[in-house]
Amino acid sequence: MKQYRLSTDELVEKIENSNLVGLSKGITLIESSLEKDRLQAEELLNRLLPKTGNSIRIGITGVPGVGKSTFIEAFGEYLINTHNKKVAVLAIDPSSQQTKGSILGDKTRMEKLAANPNAFIRPSASGKSLGGVANKTRESLLLCEAAGYDVTIIETVGVGQSETTVKNMTDFFLLLMLPGAGDELQGIKRGIVEMADLLAINKADGDNLTKANLAKSAYRNALHLLPPHKFGWTPTVTICSATENNGIDEIWSSINKYYKTMSNTNSIQRIREEQKGDWLDETLNNRLIENFLIHPEVKKQLPILKQKVIAGEVIPSTATQELIKIVLA
Amino acid sequence: MKQYRLSTDELVEKIENSNLVGLSKGITLIESSLEKDRLQAEELLNRLLPKTGNSIRIGITGVPGVGKSTFIEAFGEYLINTHNKKVAVLAIDPSSQQTKGSILGDKTRMEKLAANPNAFIRPSASGKSLGGVANKTRESLLLCEAAGYDVTIIETVGVGQSETTVKNMTDFFLLLMLPGAGDELQGIKRGIVEMADLLAINKADGDNLTKANLAKSAYRNALHLLPPHKFGWTPTVTICSATENNGIDEIWSSINKYYKTMSNTNSIQRIREEQKGDWLDETLNNRLIENFLIHPEVKKQLPILKQKVIAGEVIPSTATQELIKIVLA
Repeated sequence: MKQYRLSTDELVEKIENSNLVGLSKGITLIESSLEKDRLQAEELLNRLLPKTGNSIRIGITGVPGVGKSTFIEAFGEYLINTHNKKVAVLAIDPSSQQTKGSILGDKTRMEKLAANPNAFIRPSASGKSLGGVANKTRESLLLCEAAGYDVTIIETVGVGQSETTVKNMTDFFLLLMLPGAGDELQGIKRGIVEMADLLAINKADGDNLTKANLAKSAYRNALHLLPPHKFGWTPTVTICSATENNGIDEIWSSINKYYKTMSNTNSIQRIREEQKGDWLDETLNNRLIENFLIHPEVKKQLPILKQKVIAGEVIPSTATQELIKIVLA
Repeated sequence: MKQYRLSTDELVEKIENSNLVGLSKGITLIESSLEKDRLQAEELLNRLLPKTGNSIRIGITGVPGVGKSTFIEAFGEYLINTHNKKVAVLAIDPSSQQTKGSILGDKTRMEKLAANPNAFIRPSASGKSLGGVANKTRESLLLCEAAGYDVTIIETVGVGQSETTVKNMTDFFLLLMLPGAGDELQGIKRGIVEMADLLAINKADGDNLTKANLAKSAYRNALHLLPPHKFGWTPTVTICSATENNGIDEIWSSINKYYKTMSNTNSIQRIREEQKGDWLDETLNNRLIENFLIHPEVKKQLPILKQKVIAGEVIPSTATQELIKIVLA
């Protein structure tokens, strides 16, 4: 059967009416690298922009094995069944830059949630750079908001840069931890702990319960040593078990308390304005180099100059200046 | 006393004669953000380029507390005193982006080595971006080579992106570890372990010796589970104590073995050629946006469009296209 291309009008109408096919097609358009798709995606987004911004945007991270999928499934079902919410889940997975399509974003991970009519799960977009992937995820999030999802969850894999990316597109950043040693606060993960609005120690069940409670105290003490949160929010520590559905309600309470605190000082608005400014800067960076590299004269000179750099005849700074001169006078 | 500016001829002569003042002034020129300094730095580098490439380039990383400074001091002294080498130490510290000048790069950390006439220690350059800092460090490394340093060490702080940066400018990547649980192989650090050519468990002394040996076995087993090294090198694990000067010679043997293995297949040359290509790409990225942002019309339109993005009137992609159109036809 031939697939007809939907017009922008049709897409706008379908998305505003929470039509799942329309939303999926809109995101596919955003993810496309074809020029005509990009133009239509931009038109679509600009038209839907007034309908966006109404969701609670939650970023979730944690090391592999912490149980992120299981948690998001339990959390999503809780929000839908107990609070009558519509929940969208997107993923940022830097590894999908290589693999072109992510295992971690695979829908089959959250089968129950995916089957729920009030949930929308979309695997990670692939792309040439984390910046490109992030841009597509941000735009997809806006479509989800226009489609009426009132909680949007962006999931990341705990491997370095993607946490910052997710932090920069969400309101609330939840860090899932394993019950265990305070070691995790040391070294490389410190920066991520500092970004968190809430630490939840998952897998707090069975034999792990005692360990989880010890970890909770340890992290709570450790949080006091961190610099104060920019907008006056004090991050807290909680325990939960996604498999036993324990502690999920406390996490939701904490998120609500955060929104209440932040709304009193207009801080959510300020965070989002700052994020939009940064988003523009990043997009500019990415698009500038993309456009530069397709310039005919650059295409001709770049391989020649690259060869000279590799042969040790000229340093990269000099080669760069020569290339930039072609385009920027 | 008035400081006279050295001409490029004078700098070339001084650096080729291993003059420390000349080398320091050359690096200061590289680090300067003034246009006339940049032009002179480029001229200097292009002139010295034929004299570069002759050092063993070693990247060293590890979590804070692993004893990097103490290790580098012991290692540097060993190379100078036992092998008659000249050793240069540079640092990449992403945090110096904020602090403008790094505590971690502070010379006072390695007082003994700094006082050695055959050692040159330079704190981390500061800059607007990690890319900018990295570029300056790469150029400084070339100056050190032109000045006759035959081992160049680039140190990084274990906080995410900077390891990749250092890996991409060195031949050999040494990861220092603490004696302790195999936990460290999990999660976020996995990517860094995969980059290492040698794992050295430091602080293997006193009560820690047993733990260090256990960790050695654990890591050795774990390394088998990692994907094979691109150029046929098999990373190994060793233990050392920088404070007791134990195991330093084994690390140096391992580095020599690496060079021998790699030289047989021209792999060092291939690695460096690849690095130079990537260096050009990165420099191009950074300089392009720098040059773009100082364009008069961009300077005028950017704040207006940013305001529209923040107000939610237009998405960043659209604003970006409008800005790029100003410069790239």
